[in-house]
Amino acid sequence: MLKKINRGMIRYIRNNSLLREKLKKIVLPLMTSDMQTNIPEITPLNVRATEDAAPRFNILLPSVNQEHVFGGISTALSFFDQLAQYMPIKKRIITTDVMPDSQAIEQFKDYDPVDCDQNRASERQIVGFSDRLGKTIPVGENDYFLATAWWTAFHAQKIVRWQQEEYKKPAKKLVYFIQDFEPGFYPWSSRYALSESTYRFDLPQVAVFNSSMLHTFFKDNQYAFNTEFVFEPVLNEKLKKGLDTVSSPLNKKKQILVYGRPGVERNAFPLIIEALKVWVWQQPGVHDWELISAGEHHPDIDLGHGMVLKSVGKLPLEDYIDKLRESAIGISLMVSPHPSYPPMEMAMFGMGVITNRYANKQLSCWHENIQSIDLSVDTLVRALQDKCDRFAIDNQCFLGGRLLKQQYLESDVQFDFFKPLVQKVFKEDLDL
Amino acid sequence: MLKKINRGMIRYIRNNSLLREKLKKIVLPLMTSDMQTNIPEITPLNVRATEDAAPRFNILLPSVNQEHVFGGISTALSFFDQLAQYMPIKKRIITTDVMPDSQAIEQFKDYDPVDCDQNRASERQIVGFSDRLGKTIPVGENDYFLATAWWTAFHAQKIVRWQQEEYKKPAKKLVYFIQDFEPGFYPWSSRYALSESTYRFDLPQVAVFNSSMLHTFFKDNQYAFNTEFVFEPVLNEKLKKGLDTVSSPLNKKKQILVYGRPGVERNAFPLIIEALKVWVWQQPGVHDWELISAGEHHPDIDLGHGMVLKSVGKLPLEDYIDKLRESAIGISLMVSPHPSYPPMEMAMFGMGVITNRYANKQLSCWHENIQSIDLSVDTLVRALQDKCDRFAIDNQCFLGGRLLKQQYLESDVQFDFFKPLVQKVFKEDLDL
Repeated sequence: MLKKINRGMIRYIRNNSLLREKLKKIVLPLMTSDMQTNIPEITPLNVRATEDAAPRFNILLPSVNQEHVFGGISTALSFFDQLAQYMPIKKRIITTDVMPDSQAIEQFKDYDPVDCDQNRASERQIVGFSDRLGKTIPVGENDYFLATAWWTAFHAQKIVRWQQEEYKKPAKKLVYFIQDFEPGFYPWSSRYALSESTYRFDLPQVAVFNSSMLHTFFKDNQYAFNTEFVFEPVLNEKLKKGLDTVSSPLNKKKQILVYGRPGVERNAFPLIIEALKVWVWQQPGVHDWELISAGEHHPDIDLGHGMVLKSVGKLPLEDYIDKLRESAIGISLMVSPHPSYPPMEMAMFGMGVITNRYANKQLSCWHENIQSIDLSVDTLVRALQDKCDRFAIDNQCFLGGRLLKQQYLESDVQFDFFKPLVQKVFKEDLDL
Repeated sequence: MLKKINRGMIRYIRNNSLLREKLKKIVLPLMTSDMQTNIPEITPLNVRATEDAAPRFNILLPSVNQEHVFGGISTALSFFDQLAQYMPIKKRIITTDVMPDSQAIEQFKDYDPVDCDQNRASERQIVGFSDRLGKTIPVGENDYFLATAWWTAFHAQKIVRWQQEEYKKPAKKLVYFIQDFEPGFYPWSSRYALSESTYRFDLPQVAVFNSSMLHTFFKDNQYAFNTEFVFEPVLNEKLKKGLDTVSSPLNKKKQILVYGRPGVERNAFPLIIEALKVWVWQQPGVHDWELISAGEHHPDIDLGHGMVLKSVGKLPLEDYIDKLRESAIGISLMVSPHPSYPPMEMAMFGMGVITNRYANKQLSCWHENIQSIDLSVDTLVRALQDKCDRFAIDNQCFLGGRLLKQQYLESDVQFDFFKPLVQKVFKEDLDL
């Protein structure tokens, strides 16, 4: 009965904007106080000993459900699979934040879905361990770990230390797959400090960096790991085909493609909007231009002066290719030393691209079409106006820009360091 | 009528925890989407020309209301007052975020409360300019600006540029009072980028840094200003008296004083709690210890093993002195290169203090009683246990620790650079 009243009330509130505003003020402090003394990511992840001494390679991931497997998680899984193929070893996927749903179980059907309470010998296992209060997971003396997001490293470090003491053997080297400087995802805070501390573990860690620019950032900030490997981003295979197969020349129009993800802070969407709202009043012939935002869906945004930023959401790859082919100019920001993929993709398709410098990150040395600005509203407005002016004079002006980073097209040798990595990490237990 | 129903409903919701949880899920996306495309701090702050060419020194502050005037704002106002006394110049206080309330008007009764629409010649003015849509504030050719929080610098920079063009005179040097690296208050994001951009203004800025450690951090990160001045933190006068006047020896007991501010992320309160929850199970004789949290009020926190962290909120200075005098050990964290005040205060009162290193910040070289750790749950637990063990053996063990930073007691020479600063910034217009 109470449930029914509550349901009715929620419907009423959803449709009443005044009331919603009021409620924000009640609910916000409740949410804040919730967050203040608890860091759910580091809820203890407890383990138990097992007799099973077969070598096994474990990847710790927040989730393997389809809605989460893109970008970083997808790259980590691909690395895990390719590395494991390189040697005779069992495999286990452990998810720390979200239980695998039925779709994920289907997706990973080579893997035996195992409950954490079970001691199973299967070659390939997948274990959801987000709901872990009072539970443990078996860890043998020859379990190896691959950490991804910082809190998976936090847990893996505790496990490796426990394993060393439990089995009285030298600590297994922990492989840490680093795709950004994750403390930067937070204000200076407990999470900032905890994520940062995972880069300073006192037992051996082998770091694998996504991109040389990110690796340099870590070195510049005095982080050092036992061994460090680096791979470079490569052009997505389907996009590569989109470039190769269509032999018709790129037909550019006065269209600006924005990488617009309001939900990802480091993509600096509000800053882009601030700049566009200035630009619409300064650009000669502004009404000849179209503005499209791709990445995440959001309401269309009125920029003033009769101009609108139209959201097309997350595009299927074919439609993304169409936009890349027809757009003259791209804006894709990333407040981070990680290069991020869209600026390079835009540049490859003959667009004039504006992105930002961050610390040592400087994408203009990877492709001639990329301008890397010191980010502010003013610099973004100036860069955009400059690009539009150039395109208005010569609509071929970005087509001749050259790729300077040849590795970007060499996807077959992306992970070319498996042999030394395997030697370094696994050699004691495997017959290599 | 609708209003009355809504009021009743809100009361009902406040008392219904299930419903509150549900509501969070409705309201959170609404709040998030509000925040995503708008940065209220940079709402344009528009100015108008005035014939009045009398030299005037303007401080831009978020607020001067009593609940906001402590720490940073209080230091900035004190600097502004002392600097203005050094020369014949008019003064104006402009608040950007909150209108001065009646209490503030009373507090600043030397200042004429002026509406932004008025052109007044009074020597000292205070103008609230938070509610500024469609309004302007008069700026003459000899208005000088002192910026404090980053968005006040953002606005001051636009004003100085406008002023230079409007009056066809060399740009006035902008004084930027820097008390932290403010981008660190945000995740990598638009606000991070905008605040960072204020340190790279292309017209002359004179930076005044609160502490040499913060100044070094800026230099290490390649920020350079036209001229740079530095002042060091000094011991609060009342605390100094608390040290001097009570001649009885400090009588230390097994009490740990935590600088506990759950509302200020960079004080890393959740990390302290995580560490204490581990420590309570590891410390021999743990039940002899009391734990007190001072700074912000919060509910007492159950640490497990029968131990509680008791909140005493923000203490009046006299009570704070009592706690400093009787407590053996202090924990005060600050994820920032700014030294922050409590660790030094605790150390002066013979406490063994644990704080954290950040980049170049290393408070152990300012006082022998301070231990500066690389922050993690483990390092904090180890440091605390070490201090407790030492105190259990010898309760005088922290009393002999020496102050290494003598300037900390020299409050009369804190701002010893007024003469060169005035020469640098104001000399063209003032008869000095």
